[in-house]
Amino acid sequence: MNLILLFKEDLITPKKARLSGRRFEHARDILKVKIGSELTVGKVNGSIGSGKIVAIAKDSLELELNLKQKAPASLDLTLIMALPRPQMFKRTLQCVSALGVKKIIILNFAKVEKSLWQSSTLKPEEIRQDLILGLEQAKDTVLPKVILKKQFKPFVEDELPDLIKDKKAWVAHPGEKGKLSKIDGKGAVLIIGPEGGLVDFEVDLLKSKGVKAVTLGERILRFEHVIPYVIGKMSS
Amino acid sequence: MNLILLFKEDLITPKKARLSGRRFEHARDILKVKIGSELTVGKVNGSIGSGKIVAIAKDSLELELNLKQKAPASLDLTLIMALPRPQMFKRTLQCVSALGVKKIIILNFAKVEKSLWQSSTLKPEEIRQDLILGLEQAKDTVLPKVILKKQFKPFVEDELPDLIKDKKAWVAHPGEKGKLSKIDGKGAVLIIGPEGGLVDFEVDLLKSKGVKAVTLGERILRFEHVIPYVIGKMSS
Repeated sequence: MNLILLFKEDLITPKKARLSGRRFEHARDILKVKIGSELTVGKVNGSIGSGKIVAIAKDSLELELNLKQKAPASLDLTLIMALPRPQMFKRTLQCVSALGVKKIIILNFAKVEKSLWQSSTLKPEEIRQDLILGLEQAKDTVLPKVILKKQFKPFVEDELPDLIKDKKAWVAHPGEKGKLSKIDGKGAVLIIGPEGGLVDFEVDLLKSKGVKAVTLGERILRFEHVIPYVIGKMSS
Repeated sequence: MNLILLFKEDLITPKKARLSGRRFEHARDILKVKIGSELTVGKVNGSIGSGKIVAIAKDSLELELNLKQKAPASLDLTLIMALPRPQMFKRTLQCVSALGVKKIIILNFAKVEKSLWQSSTLKPEEIRQDLILGLEQAKDTVLPKVILKKQFKPFVEDELPDLIKDKKAWVAHPGEKGKLSKIDGKGAVLIIGPEGGLVDFEVDLLKSKGVKAVTLGERILRFEHVIPYVIGKMSS
C-alpha cells in the first residue's frame, strides 16, 4: 500500500478524513504511525497528497488532508481480455489497475471453461477490491471500469466496431506476422485471449472488424505475465 | 506445460525416451494421450521437436523422438534482482525463465529482510524446478543460470565492472531522469532492487561503476510485474 485511497464515506469534512478497517490497521501495524505522521493519500478519482495524523483511536484514526497533486497519467488503452482462473484473475486485475489501464472488458472466448464465469471473484465488490489494491500499489486514484461480456459474437459484431474506431486495435495470436507498436494519441485497444489461444472463428471475426493480429514472439507466456509484458512494449 | 523437457536420464537411446512422474501424469491426465499421439518435447539445452508415443505402461510411457527445431532465441540480458518473498520468488523465476533470460543474479540489498535468504526456495533443486516450469511454458530448452550473491558491495566493486563491460547497464530507481532503451547487439544488464527500493549508497555505488539509473515512470509496480513490463520494453 504505497497510497491510502479515501472514499466519500471517509471524509468528515473536505479537509479531514477518518480511516478504519484494513487501512487503519496498515497504518498502525505496518507503517507504525504516531500523531503528526504523514501518510500518502488520495481521494478516489481525485487528487493525491499527504494526510497528517491528528488523532488515533482504538479502531480508527483522523487525518488532515493536503491534496494538491494530480493522479499519474492513465494509459489510453482499452484492454479486452479472457477470463483466467480466479487467483490469476485477481492478480491480473491488480496488475492492470496498477499499470494505469482504465477500461477493461472481460470477454468470453471458446477456450474458456464456462464454470469460470460462476466465480465469486467476478462480483462487482470483489473486482472493485482488486482494482483498489492495484491503485494503492501504483499511487493512483482513478478506478478503472470493468465490464463483463459473456457473448463473444454479439460483442464483436455490435460493439467492437465503435470501440476501435480511429484507434489502433490488436489481438495477440501466435504465428501471426504483425507486430505491436506504441499507443499513439488516439488510444488503442488490445485483445488478449485465453492461455489456450483463440479459435480460428474468433481470430477471423476480429480481423474482419479491423483488428490487427500480432505475434508476441515464439515464446508462450502465462496470462498474468503477458499483460505487463505487452503493456511495457506499448507504453512509452 | 507447452513442451515436455527431456533430461539425460530419460533417454533410452538418442532417439528414444521414457517419461515417468509429473510429466507422465501430465501426458496421461491432461493431454489424455494414446499410442501414436505426438507430444511437443525438447532435450534440455538442446533441440525441440515431437515425441511419438510408442508404449504406455502403468507409470511411464515411451517416446520416439524427432527433434529438429532449434530452441527459441535467448534474451541477451543479465538480470540482477533482489530476493522477494518465497512465493513471489518462485513466480518470478518461472516468468524470467519463460521470457528467455539465461543469466540471473540474485543480489542482496539493504532493504531485503535477511531471513529471506534462509528460504528453501533458494535450494538449487527448487530453483531448477521453477526454471524448468518456465521453459515448459515458453517451449524453450536452455536452462538459465542462477547465481546467489549475498554481499552487495564486494559484488558491485569486484565483479560488476567486468559483467557490464561494453554493455548497456541499467538500474531502475524512482525519480531518475534516464530512460530504458532496447537491448542491442552487445547485450545488457538490468538491475531491479527490492519493492522497498534501493538506498542512496547502493544507487551511488552502482552509478560510480557506470550503471545508468532509469525511471520506470510514476507508477510503482509489484516486483513480479515489473520484470515482464521492463523486459517487454527492452526486447524488440
